[in-house]
Amino acid sequence: MSKNVNRKILLASRPKGMPEASNFDIIESNIPEISEGEVLIRTIYLSVDPYMRGRMSDAKSYAKPYEVGEPFIGGMVGEIVESKNPRFQKGQYVEGRLEWAEYNVSDGSTIRKVNPELAPITTALHVLGMPGLTAYFGLMFIGQPKEGETVVVSGASGAVGTIVGQIAKLKGCRVVGIAGADDKCSFLTEELGFDSAINYKTVENLRKALKEVCPSGVDVYFDNVGGKVSDAVMTLINFQSRTAICGQISQYNLEKPEIGPRIAGQLLTTSSLMKGFIVSDYAEHNKEGLIQLSKWVKEGKIQYRENIVEGFENTVEAFLGLFRGDNIGKQLVKVAEE
Amino acid sequence: MSKNVNRKILLASRPKGMPEASNFDIIESNIPEISEGEVLIRTIYLSVDPYMRGRMSDAKSYAKPYEVGEPFIGGMVGEIVESKNPRFQKGQYVEGRLEWAEYNVSDGSTIRKVNPELAPITTALHVLGMPGLTAYFGLMFIGQPKEGETVVVSGASGAVGTIVGQIAKLKGCRVVGIAGADDKCSFLTEELGFDSAINYKTVENLRKALKEVCPSGVDVYFDNVGGKVSDAVMTLINFQSRTAICGQISQYNLEKPEIGPRIAGQLLTTSSLMKGFIVSDYAEHNKEGLIQLSKWVKEGKIQYRENIVEGFENTVEAFLGLFRGDNIGKQLVKVAEE
Repeated sequence: MSKNVNRKILLASRPKGMPEASNFDIIESNIPEISEGEVLIRTIYLSVDPYMRGRMSDAKSYAKPYEVGEPFIGGMVGEIVESKNPRFQKGQYVEGRLEWAEYNVSDGSTIRKVNPELAPITTALHVLGMPGLTAYFGLMFIGQPKEGETVVVSGASGAVGTIVGQIAKLKGCRVVGIAGADDKCSFLTEELGFDSAINYKTVENLRKALKEVCPSGVDVYFDNVGGKVSDAVMTLINFQSRTAICGQISQYNLEKPEIGPRIAGQLLTTSSLMKGFIVSDYAEHNKEGLIQLSKWVKEGKIQYRENIVEGFENTVEAFLGLFRGDNIGKQLVKVAEE
Repeated sequence: MSKNVNRKILLASRPKGMPEASNFDIIESNIPEISEGEVLIRTIYLSVDPYMRGRMSDAKSYAKPYEVGEPFIGGMVGEIVESKNPRFQKGQYVEGRLEWAEYNVSDGSTIRKVNPELAPITTALHVLGMPGLTAYFGLMFIGQPKEGETVVVSGASGAVGTIVGQIAKLKGCRVVGIAGADDKCSFLTEELGFDSAINYKTVENLRKALKEVCPSGVDVYFDNVGGKVSDAVMTLINFQSRTAICGQISQYNLEKPEIGPRIAGQLLTTSSLMKGFIVSDYAEHNKEGLIQLSKWVKEGKIQYRENIVEGFENTVEAFLGLFRGDNIGKQLVKVAEE
């Protein structure tokens, strides 16, 4: 703490359509003082996640909107630099949803300790954190994959999709990923063991391409994307299929809601299920989920890739990149050295 | 059996859009002879049901299409007039899915006995039969209504909808029905105890009208209709709502699939579930379902209404009437005296 400066990123204005740099402000303030029961956390890594786009709008959703003029709240991993809370000691690493800031104060209720011996601390922001649990809960509780079934994942090369596909492989499924670039597709098949991957941006007929690699139809669809990609998948669902709706990134930046084929009829004639979810729906299973994911990571059964941008001032750019499809795997911002 | 004549209704041609009388043929043949293990059944009541429209098309669905030139298969109640099967005696009443014909032969595997002491035999075709079980399973297993929740039913005055709403009332819910005529709406509120009913054909703004009578939003939506009616309901679903898709009668006669608002985003931001089903998905629960429904009927807790057309030759007209919204309650055809 050589200089008493704490930079923060605020929501300057609500975006119309695709967010732009002008929707964000960086301000400087003093590093806050802490009171009894609180800790001061130095941010090391910030997480940028697609769901945060939803919170920039004031539409009703599961997560309450960010306020204009107030800081962004997101996932971060940091180090305790000062503690007046007996549960936390200086030097410990913690993860939590806190301000997009170089320093945060917490009363301990919104953070959890991260064990740097178990895995790199960044993993607390993906495979051993919110995205990993999102993948695990959505696939296991909604998708309920059975051996020999076909699982399709959209947004397959992202933080959640990569884990969904690998868990489905561990469950004995045929796994097909849909992603938006050839290098993403080869990453899925060559490094993560997906059976097939389709570049929806370059394929001529997505439905036909999917049908070729899903000769027995689709039993489980894990949807991060929505829109036309989902339209194609939904035409191929099997009797009693399960669709977990985890994200709809294709729709987040639309100025006007899109219309598309009605899917209720398809769900009816196939006795199929579709369910939206958010990771906190399954919070009571967090512990078992993290134990299972940690085991798979330690055994080398789940691989991950990180895309790391350096510098707090590049956070907004990294966030905007999510909607351009810049990242393979988890997009992080390195704010400071460990 | 004074005359040895058995009339049957065949699928003459597949309809484009709304079915017409010309899509059907009535033929005469001899009353069939039965072999060892079989029974001969004289039809008393035929059931006409919206799902049969789907089977007139050759699109893939849960029920396999009727073949052109082959008889319609549907629900019927009849009397055993001859038996070479030790499980059935002459004079017994049975229910099953058999040909739209004055006489049917069965090996006993597709029929069940109906007890005329328990309730009128017609009830085996609605509240104590397929429509009743459909209502019970869809509401209880998918809708999972809890006391104090708001349940909306579309196609509310039909054979299934009337039972859904009454069960939801028994479970302590606020129940709102959507139907297509004022007399249907007053039947729902005045005779069946629905809290509100909305005539979607005459209301100016369905969403606004629904919002007024669902001040706490919609927790359970039991959908028989689809299309614009469902669009309005889906804008009002609550966090962790459940939608059971039982039918999509607004869509069955469209020549081209309709497009509409995408609902995946709404399911996502409310962590909501939507599931299509067919009564046979829950066949293992048939017995408990019928016991429960019989109990409610006997205790006077579930009312029903029948719309009965007389004469086998009027079956097609009664079926076509379903799509014009002619019926309140269960539409039946009386083919012969008991």
